[in-house]
Amino acid sequence: MRVTGTIDEIRQWTAQARAAGKRIGLVPTMGALHVGHISLIEAAAAQCDFVVVSLFVNPAQFGPGEDFGNYPRPFERDLAICGQHGVDVVFTPDPLEMYPRENLTWVHVEGITKNLCGRSRPGHFRGVTTVCTKLFNIVWPDAAFFGQKDAQQAIVIRRMVADLNMPLEIVVCPTVREGDGLAVSSRNQYLSEQQRSEAPVVYEALQEGRRMIESGATDPGQVRARIEAVIGRVPAMQIEYVSLVDPETLENVERIAGTVLIAVAVRFGLARLIDNVMVDSGRP
Amino acid sequence: MRVTGTIDEIRQWTAQARAAGKRIGLVPTMGALHVGHISLIEAAAAQCDFVVVSLFVNPAQFGPGEDFGNYPRPFERDLAICGQHGVDVVFTPDPLEMYPRENLTWVHVEGITKNLCGRSRPGHFRGVTTVCTKLFNIVWPDAAFFGQKDAQQAIVIRRMVADLNMPLEIVVCPTVREGDGLAVSSRNQYLSEQQRSEAPVVYEALQEGRRMIESGATDPGQVRARIEAVIGRVPAMQIEYVSLVDPETLENVERIAGTVLIAVAVRFGLARLIDNVMVDSGRP
Repeated sequence: MRVTGTIDEIRQWTAQARAAGKRIGLVPTMGALHVGHISLIEAAAAQCDFVVVSLFVNPAQFGPGEDFGNYPRPFERDLAICGQHGVDVVFTPDPLEMYPRENLTWVHVEGITKNLCGRSRPGHFRGVTTVCTKLFNIVWPDAAFFGQKDAQQAIVIRRMVADLNMPLEIVVCPTVREGDGLAVSSRNQYLSEQQRSEAPVVYEALQEGRRMIESGATDPGQVRARIEAVIGRVPAMQIEYVSLVDPETLENVERIAGTVLIAVAVRFGLARLIDNVMVDSGRP
Repeated sequence: MRVTGTIDEIRQWTAQARAAGKRIGLVPTMGALHVGHISLIEAAAAQCDFVVVSLFVNPAQFGPGEDFGNYPRPFERDLAICGQHGVDVVFTPDPLEMYPRENLTWVHVEGITKNLCGRSRPGHFRGVTTVCTKLFNIVWPDAAFFGQKDAQQAIVIRRMVADLNMPLEIVVCPTVREGDGLAVSSRNQYLSEQQRSEAPVVYEALQEGRRMIESGATDPGQVRARIEAVIGRVPAMQIEYVSLVDPETLENVERIAGTVLIAVAVRFGLARLIDNVMVDSGRP
């Protein structure tokens, strides 16, 4: 496994792989790798001949007061995980390599970035889409791999790729969960032991929402109220949003039909946790 | 020479050229080709092995009330010109091929798009940078060719390419002029015969500005006033701006030093004419 922090070098290596006819897979990450990331790396290794993992805590996607400074950076551990899972190249630039001058150019997806996490994190998705564009232009992957846990991110990136005719495939892999249902996240380590034991209530609430819809519920307000009540069993958990949205437009649905994305964000201690389930109502 | 309107086909053709080790040059145009475009095609043919010309009147870069509907589209003549100048492929998509759904994703360059043409054409550069990104992603050129006549456009695109790590070279070719100095432009055909005979005053005024700076003028206000006075000899010409700017930041200079870009836009009859000169003051 090779490791580089420079754009010149990663470009040389991926150009060689491309010239050798290899299919290149990119797993863009902010490091602090966990089993969710490993599932993306494994998917990339299964579908591609040459796997690139980027480790870059992207300042442009953090807002003021967010956890950019505290975000975990267990660099050696991340490299070891990559080494154990068949990664060919790790790209780990420092911020000045990615943003050597004031960044004036932004890739922005309108509309679908307004709801859900876009509400409380203005500028976040603009930072994500801009850094992904940069990484795609640097690596030229044939496919890039994202997790369904960040459902809005995956939908926004798919739309960006389609709108801008980016020549790559976006692969979205299922959310990986702990045994008790908690979605795996780098930010789970911000939780105290007590909080960690209570955190699975988010997924329990989502499952309750799924059951209601599969049992015929059509009123999103009723489902939302129920989800909020389940989460409310952990009083210290502050709900940021519980939303039932169209999985393409990400707009709140007025009546449940077709497939609905139920998405939740909560603040819990020092952590902000998000999770979601896609539910097929079975009704047109 | 091959011609296509589909993204699939142009991608196949450029992929074949790339696989054959050819250097690909793209000349993005809105058609209505003139000797200025021909100079870009010739530069591309000299520097590349495979020349792609795009003909696409991009709705996203026209504002309300601008000339999108009236913009000349002499399609057969454009193809003939491409055929005579060694173009390998003409890409001529219709608007629905380029924008098959509501476009939510925009590439926007901040700061340097505010002054000059950005003032009177809000959204124009956003349309240009977005369509260029799309064309670059479709064609994957090694180099793309632009004219110095659209000085701000060239500077904005260079900055976009640098900020987003787009893997291509931007080549800016000198402004081509008629015998009497008028910068060649597709919009010159909006001029009446009388207006056409008066239009060279724009370049005369720019040359006067150049002479003043080369003779030691340091006050941009003085130079601007002189340029406006020269243009004022044609009373029907309405000045939109006369600006002396830093060629990188495009901000107005307070004192003339180093290299200065003098840029002019006027409205004249049905036409909006722009022109510019880059002047080395010879002073630090």
